[in-house]
Amino acid sequence: MRDIKGRADLCAINTATLGFQAPIGQVIDAVARAGFGGIAPWRREIEGRDVLSTARQIRDAGLKVTGYCRSTYLPAATRAEFLASVVDNRRAIEDAARLGAYSFFMVVGGLPKGSRNLAEARAQVAEGTTLLIEHARELGVRLALEPLHPVYAADRSCLTTLAEALDLCAIIEPEPPAEPWLGVGIDTYHVWWDPVLAAQIVRAGAARRIHGFHVSDWLNPSRDVLNDRGMMGDGVIDIRAIRGAVEAAGYQGFIEVEIFSADNWWKRPIDETLRVCRERLDLAC
Amino acid sequence: MRDIKGRADLCAINTATLGFQAPIGQVIDAVARAGFGGIAPWRREIEGRDVLSTARQIRDAGLKVTGYCRSTYLPAATRAEFLASVVDNRRAIEDAARLGAYSFFMVVGGLPKGSRNLAEARAQVAEGTTLLIEHARELGVRLALEPLHPVYAADRSCLTTLAEALDLCAIIEPEPPAEPWLGVGIDTYHVWWDPVLAAQIVRAGAARRIHGFHVSDWLNPSRDVLNDRGMMGDGVIDIRAIRGAVEAAGYQGFIEVEIFSADNWWKRPIDETLRVCRERLDLAC
Repeated sequence: MRDIKGRADLCAINTATLGFQAPIGQVIDAVARAGFGGIAPWRREIEGRDVLSTARQIRDAGLKVTGYCRSTYLPAATRAEFLASVVDNRRAIEDAARLGAYSFFMVVGGLPKGSRNLAEARAQVAEGTTLLIEHARELGVRLALEPLHPVYAADRSCLTTLAEALDLCAIIEPEPPAEPWLGVGIDTYHVWWDPVLAAQIVRAGAARRIHGFHVSDWLNPSRDVLNDRGMMGDGVIDIRAIRGAVEAAGYQGFIEVEIFSADNWWKRPIDETLRVCRERLDLAC
Repeated sequence: MRDIKGRADLCAINTATLGFQAPIGQVIDAVARAGFGGIAPWRREIEGRDVLSTARQIRDAGLKVTGYCRSTYLPAATRAEFLASVVDNRRAIEDAARLGAYSFFMVVGGLPKGSRNLAEARAQVAEGTTLLIEHARELGVRLALEPLHPVYAADRSCLTTLAEALDLCAIIEPEPPAEPWLGVGIDTYHVWWDPVLAAQIVRAGAARRIHGFHVSDWLNPSRDVLNDRGMMGDGVIDIRAIRGAVEAAGYQGFIEVEIFSADNWWKRPIDETLRVCRERLDLAC
């Protein structure tokens, strides 16, 4: 397990952590100034702008782009909507390539409106990912399937466990290259409860499929499962143990902070949040 | 799969569904009057009363007691608290026997205050259940380990999946009798998202370990993951498909309605809620 004390250069900030208070240009500067090594921007900050110029600013600031967030939901009520989502995701993957992102993060979507058919939603995710992986490979962008906490199964992600995500990887990319294009994003908030987490992290690492690692904490009590995530150390997740498992499995990439916190961190000045992120990466990760 | 249309006698009401608005005596009468075949009372309605007299009233009303709800949480910060919980649960199991309950429902508890050690909490659940099963067997009460939705892993149940519950059964009662004393409670609200649900239901049925089956629905959006559960048919769960799987696996027990709904069903007159339960058991289960 790496010693990350004082090594913010091994850590990244997912811009969602800062609540989208400022334009991406200012966020890039703040993240770099705080000493971080990486940044994960969101499409809402990138699309409709000159992507290559933003990419240059990130590079010039000395930052790597970890993951680009995130996919358009795949499950859809009609075939036309499904295919439109695939097209939309292809365009986003092109932007991920322009940004030089290590991976494109896939939050796959939940049930289409009116549907109770989880199996069908999952089949659409498999098909959609199959339709995207070739394009991603050609552009040199890894896809990171991010299983979300099962509390989001209805509305955000029918992909709910690391095991399920790895099963999907094995089906879609059965004979991967030494460095697979399809992999998983592991987020402590989403996976910490999983009774088979340790074994699945080993499996993910052995397959070289860990394409990103996010940290935040689960507050107890939690006021809102969407936007009341905690700063590392403020909740109940043994983040250090999970990081230890992820790194023992071979992951040497960035430790990325991603905190959705509408009533707390998003209301604080960006520089303060970044400072506390640094402290807590040292103390609680 | 049984045809339950008009067969409320195959169905039961968990009294939590009615919001504890009335004393248990009135609730028993209302449930029987509505035509249901079973009832699942809670300890708050039973303890401190003459249990045998309540048991007689239930019998006289023509109702069976499905599950008795529920265990005191097992994981504890100190050994003394843990052992006190075991003692408390033993007493509750004695009441379950007095009530003639088919099973004692175990909601096992989450992390003790201040703990981040899920593995330790799970070990305490295993030890506590081991300490309880012999007593339950002697009294003729089945234990139903109920995996709760992972959203409750911190505060209510470190037991989060059916697979985990069945693993625990196999460890604690490795050579079960033809009708095992240790089993699981399957609640649609808690398990519907699980990508390996179908296989685990088959496994549970093959082991004859399905000791209870609860239905309610997952609303989307959900305002509160604790007390905003939906009436069957109002949410996204394919309840009929899950019941089909459970019955195909051999379960022939009651279909029990358990809805926590602080802002909706708990505010309605008991008779109205019971009437809608009957309708929806026909239409959506």
